[in-house]
Amino acid sequence: MPPDTATALLSARWVLPVAPENRVLDDHSVVLAGSKVLAVLPTPVARERWPDLPETRLDRHALLPGLVNAHGHAAMSLLRGYADDLPLATWLNERIWPLEGRWVDPAFVADGTALAVAEMVAAGTTTFSDMYFFPEASAAVALRAGIRAQILGPLVRFPNAWSSGADEAIHKSLALHDEYRDSDRIRIAFGPHSTYALDALHLARIAVLAEELDVRVQIHLHETTEEIATARKETGERPLETLERCGLLGPNLQAVHMTQLEPGDPGRLARHAVSVVHCPQSNLKLASGFCPVAELRAAGVRVALGTDGAASNNSLSLFREMHVAAILAKAVAADAAALPALEVIRMATLDGAEALGFGDLTGSLESGKAADMVAVDLSGIANEPVFHPESQLVYAGGERGVSTVWVDGEPIFDKGRHLRQDTDAILASVRRWRNRMQDEQ
Amino acid sequence: MPPDTATALLSARWVLPVAPENRVLDDHSVVLAGSKVLAVLPTPVARERWPDLPETRLDRHALLPGLVNAHGHAAMSLLRGYADDLPLATWLNERIWPLEGRWVDPAFVADGTALAVAEMVAAGTTTFSDMYFFPEASAAVALRAGIRAQILGPLVRFPNAWSSGADEAIHKSLALHDEYRDSDRIRIAFGPHSTYALDALHLARIAVLAEELDVRVQIHLHETTEEIATARKETGERPLETLERCGLLGPNLQAVHMTQLEPGDPGRLARHAVSVVHCPQSNLKLASGFCPVAELRAAGVRVALGTDGAASNNSLSLFREMHVAAILAKAVAADAAALPALEVIRMATLDGAEALGFGDLTGSLESGKAADMVAVDLSGIANEPVFHPESQLVYAGGERGVSTVWVDGEPIFDKGRHLRQDTDAILASVRRWRNRMQDEQ
Repeated sequence: MPPDTATALLSARWVLPVAPENRVLDDHSVVLAGSKVLAVLPTPVARERWPDLPETRLDRHALLPGLVNAHGHAAMSLLRGYADDLPLATWLNERIWPLEGRWVDPAFVADGTALAVAEMVAAGTTTFSDMYFFPEASAAVALRAGIRAQILGPLVRFPNAWSSGADEAIHKSLALHDEYRDSDRIRIAFGPHSTYALDALHLARIAVLAEELDVRVQIHLHETTEEIATARKETGERPLETLERCGLLGPNLQAVHMTQLEPGDPGRLARHAVSVVHCPQSNLKLASGFCPVAELRAAGVRVALGTDGAASNNSLSLFREMHVAAILAKAVAADAAALPALEVIRMATLDGAEALGFGDLTGSLESGKAADMVAVDLSGIANEPVFHPESQLVYAGGERGVSTVWVDGEPIFDKGRHLRQDTDAILASVRRWRNRMQDEQ
Repeated sequence: MPPDTATALLSARWVLPVAPENRVLDDHSVVLAGSKVLAVLPTPVARERWPDLPETRLDRHALLPGLVNAHGHAAMSLLRGYADDLPLATWLNERIWPLEGRWVDPAFVADGTALAVAEMVAAGTTTFSDMYFFPEASAAVALRAGIRAQILGPLVRFPNAWSSGADEAIHKSLALHDEYRDSDRIRIAFGPHSTYALDALHLARIAVLAEELDVRVQIHLHETTEEIATARKETGERPLETLERCGLLGPNLQAVHMTQLEPGDPGRLARHAVSVVHCPQSNLKLASGFCPVAELRAAGVRVALGTDGAASNNSLSLFREMHVAAILAKAVAADAAALPALEVIRMATLDGAEALGFGDLTGSLESGKAADMVAVDLSGIANEPVFHPESQLVYAGGERGVSTVWVDGEPIFDKGRHLRQDTDAILASVRRWRNRMQDEQ
């Protein structure tokens, strides 16, 4: 069917299209043309123009683009709460890495990713980024679950369950990229873990490949003070400078965390059109530091939002991440007007989509874009009165009201039920993994 | 019936008694004696000793003391989201205070408090503190709803809807205190708003009355840098010093916010046994500053938790407050091991109860205490696997699993339903208030 034939109306009390204008539209309808958005119009206008179309009424709901979780390690959901409240080095070296070394295999990744995707979908996320071992397993799970994803295998110098080192990891990433070349759902990108996990020559090689093939690159960058201090000591420069020297600063780059900045850094990131992925809950929980979000945005840097993995969060709800991002940005900027609710919603939708290279496809409710959407019921004791729905979505716990989630116009979650995933089977597998890991603790 | 006659068993997968030991007990039962806790025992032991008692099984649940919300302005729930993302002075002077001046009366307070109590109960809170106009109306609502409360009328020098100034406000507080003298549910305390809203002579008078009558005192203290700067300019001293001079620093005092401290302050607060009430979400959202929670606790200061009012939060869930408190404390202390999950649960229960003067009665599951409890279902996609239930309660969004809430052994919330409040009637009244206020915006 041609993309300009309307097929259905979704009429909501409030529509937040994010673009072309980022404001709240009262009593509007999203007109669908199959899997695409055809138009966003006042409901009476839409009804008059298409009186015979099936109409879904969302009378107590806000309808907004599906959320984009721009950084995470999905399979680590199997380690949720396994080792909290520990110093970062102890957490990684003594708990997480040994456990991963012992257990991570394709089945672990498939089961953990299925759990993570189910949680994300139920919280309104329709696109996520994932960096973990066995990315082919994560990609397959995402595809079956009907969610959109940027998938990255970790590129690290040391041998691990998935690769013998950086060369093989790059090779495997390229092969996987080739496999999903034509997919609108799955995009494979490069995941150099960090400057401390890779040498400069491999970083330079990744830069060339990324530019040649137009592949995105995501890296953990300036997460902690220790990372900067160690880099200075070992290389004489900060990781950001290493990336610049290796040719990696550019519009394809997604720099995750960025809690440790110097005065010239926001301008440098903006000039190179680098996207920053902000993970406030992980940064706080691991005591990594404070990303200056308002300052970065004022400098013209695109800032997306990520939950990071469940082992350092412990929730994959991007609504919860929006909440913490919005209130933390105000305190960090010492300005209660910093990062208003509509702006953080933009970060969690369109900015995320653009950072991941999905901006042409998703992240806003605009004509021609995929109908990736979430409906949130704002009625009830914890949300009312509703003066400004965006305030409720961000500050009052939007994820509790998620009622329906669509990808490409297809509902994948509705009224508490997953339509593409068997959550009973997922939970049974999760409990098996838990018991096996617990027994060997 | 004598308090040592067991009447029922509540058998949970995990019990978190908070005291005498603050740890997780696997497969334990809380033995009730009417409205009191008789004992906490391993479930097989309890079943053997009392084989004929009715037993409630909570096989997927954590059972913990009901939460204590140590600071708020309940009726302001009617202003939830009315004016977000504004600078503090604009927010107060141009939006909140004019709106309050126009609308606040006993009916507003009764309806707003009913909404707030319903939200708090559904999120596991069994005791709250409230500072607002017409405290007699809040107290009546709390009593009917079956929740425990510390109620304070605002003591301010300027005339307002409730009083002509400080003298009348103190007089009315004393009368209300007398009315509830014998209540275990409602305790009336003094609510001097702040040092800038009262003169030193009234603060001194409150200090004497509080000591004579053994009444608690709650005050907003060191909330913002502006508060300190203005006080220095106008009085030559910081508000904390003014309170010391007026004789208010003592075990009856609850100092709310405390984001602006000098090096000697934690020791001074500890010496005077002052309780601090930490409201991290409000502090972040209003860009007030960062309370050094780990440092205060290390100095021996009791730190309770509060949500503040819905107009500056916008949720009254103490689970959400615990989450932000726990992750923020780590970043502020630059220590990922700061404020572990069990410690923040203690802050939100026993420390809060002791700060409010309810410590003999509630805040832990110990023999002889009131059976004020909350059961949280930890099964499901967003919580599993469960390695450490305290991690899930704090970091993964415990309020989403609240299944039953008891005060004095009586369920007041069960399986999504309020048993002592008519939520349809509350929502109808909230919508009426919303429409009236919206129309005059």
